[in-house]
Amino acid sequence: MTAILLPFTGGRVTLKQGGGGRAMRALIERLFVRDFATMPFDGVGVDAMDDGAAIRIGDDWLVITTDSHVIHPIVFPGGDIGRLSISGTVNDLAMMGATRVLGLTCSIILEEGFSLDSLEAIQRSMIATCREANAPVVTGDTKVMGRGEIDGLVINTCGIGLTRTLVRDNGLHTGDRIIVTGNIAEHGLAVMAARHGIEFEGDLVSDVAPMNGMIDSILSDAALADAVTAMKDPTRGGVASALHEMASKSNVGIVLQERSLPMTDAVRSVGELLGIDPLHVANEGKALLGVRADAVDQILARLHEHPLGRNATVIGTCGEERRGAIILDTGFGRRLLAEPEGEPLPRIC
Amino acid sequence: MTAILLPFTGGRVTLKQGGGGRAMRALIERLFVRDFATMPFDGVGVDAMDDGAAIRIGDDWLVITTDSHVIHPIVFPGGDIGRLSISGTVNDLAMMGATRVLGLTCSIILEEGFSLDSLEAIQRSMIATCREANAPVVTGDTKVMGRGEIDGLVINTCGIGLTRTLVRDNGLHTGDRIIVTGNIAEHGLAVMAARHGIEFEGDLVSDVAPMNGMIDSILSDAALADAVTAMKDPTRGGVASALHEMASKSNVGIVLQERSLPMTDAVRSVGELLGIDPLHVANEGKALLGVRADAVDQILARLHEHPLGRNATVIGTCGEERRGAIILDTGFGRRLLAEPEGEPLPRIC
Repeated sequence: MTAILLPFTGGRVTLKQGGGGRAMRALIERLFVRDFATMPFDGVGVDAMDDGAAIRIGDDWLVITTDSHVIHPIVFPGGDIGRLSISGTVNDLAMMGATRVLGLTCSIILEEGFSLDSLEAIQRSMIATCREANAPVVTGDTKVMGRGEIDGLVINTCGIGLTRTLVRDNGLHTGDRIIVTGNIAEHGLAVMAARHGIEFEGDLVSDVAPMNGMIDSILSDAALADAVTAMKDPTRGGVASALHEMASKSNVGIVLQERSLPMTDAVRSVGELLGIDPLHVANEGKALLGVRADAVDQILARLHEHPLGRNATVIGTCGEERRGAIILDTGFGRRLLAEPEGEPLPRIC
Repeated sequence: MTAILLPFTGGRVTLKQGGGGRAMRALIERLFVRDFATMPFDGVGVDAMDDGAAIRIGDDWLVITTDSHVIHPIVFPGGDIGRLSISGTVNDLAMMGATRVLGLTCSIILEEGFSLDSLEAIQRSMIATCREANAPVVTGDTKVMGRGEIDGLVINTCGIGLTRTLVRDNGLHTGDRIIVTGNIAEHGLAVMAARHGIEFEGDLVSDVAPMNGMIDSILSDAALADAVTAMKDPTRGGVASALHEMASKSNVGIVLQERSLPMTDAVRSVGELLGIDPLHVANEGKALLGVRADAVDQILARLHEHPLGRNATVIGTCGEERRGAIILDTGFGRRLLAEPEGEPLPRIC
């Protein structure tokens, strides 16, 4: 992808640089991609900035991905850091086609004095999510830092999976449709509400869930798998950030139908109350799929059969206009959707 | 291995539980192994508590390992957190026989306000160590936490490698010799000295280095590889902790010759000054090898050819006496070497 070398702000790391948007990509490109990518590597490596890396092993691709989870608070409506850490990594594997997980690693950094009861509860949540995703934790690491040296705990998970069907985030073509697998912005808004003690009428819970079963129901059908041109999960930076990355890497423009975006009334009203565009808010149980137009109905039907995909819907179309950009069709007119600098709030995942 | 379920101390995480010794093993067994190991998994999994996990792929083993690096200070005599994070993971792979690294992941958590110049220096150190180990970073993750929410930065690295020759830490037999590949206790004491601003005469620098090249010089020779019965790198908790784990898992007793332990005068005097037994101190560029007696000379000769192995020497013998324990032969008499509760100081790696 095109390198975007933003100037560093005063020579110090900013919260925005962890937010999943332009600022973070610029930091990563400057510090990591530029040099790490100079080492010989035969596969999808760090310069691809995809959801993970892919390495050829015989006829298969070995996919590997990593995520550190720093979410605050560690328990939130609909989930906790344990469920998030397993789901996040399983989902990154699934987005590259590796729906069957060989193994996960779990590396926990704890603050001295952290409650062992809380740790056990988090661990129970992790194992339950592992079972849901059929993904075993195979190795781990534990570190303890002193009081005040880390806020509670953070969890890093890595995942590896094998797949014949490698899916990338850069394969969109003119005419492809964009499907989102369900209601957007639930994770980020639920966490924000929990953090600030805001109460609402109606349900506002995180969508955090492992999606590999749902994705496998598509990819295990060769005809459907062939029609999937790209996948990405819209986590930090939300649907807006993920679509920008997909459009830019694929060199297509995407016309996004604002009125087609599936969201609950709770999300809509909380977003308005906080002045936050749901398109910019993190999801943890939703995928964006680029799909050939002739297969859209079949893929939607298959998604609707799965509990996590019952609100799946088409939200956009890829074209030649404004390559690399997102055109928001509001129903009243069209405007360019700006690429977010980053997630509105830090520590959302 | 035998579960050691120590009582939790007041229901809170203690620094000792991150120290690589008995206290940490008890925490890990209670919280992670007990439940994670109940999921079906065909390979060397979390219950083995080895340096990593191993999964069969055709005729090969895929080895995967993870480590979070929380060392303080992040720059110390002989190295920095960047070199440590690459070396630590490469070494864990090598200890299981995977000397050729398929890929590493790099997940960095930064404190808001962290100096970008420091970050670039760390990154340069990482890439230099990657080149030394011929180990590419293939994917990564970046998170930023607020000021005071994390102390500077921590780096998680995961590694994967393929090997035909899986080496475990539990394969010692009666009669095997224990080789250490060089001088002990340099990493931990150098970091302690740096942290507390203690100055000494003579050199005291960390041994942090990737050992996969040295280990490969043994394992790539089929005759020598066949004679290696176990490997482990003595990191947190030092040689004492690693040998206890190897002896306990292999169900042998190890007689350790105190006078054979290679160490510099600087390490000896600093250890005495601080009242710390060098056997309990972390190494980051040393390996313990269990070797069949008939191959010891050949393996030592091969190690001596490598810059990292020129002080390699035999330090012990495996026997049937006191299975699971370490008998320290001081030259004047014999006593049992207690298993350390953990590393004397936190955040050593």
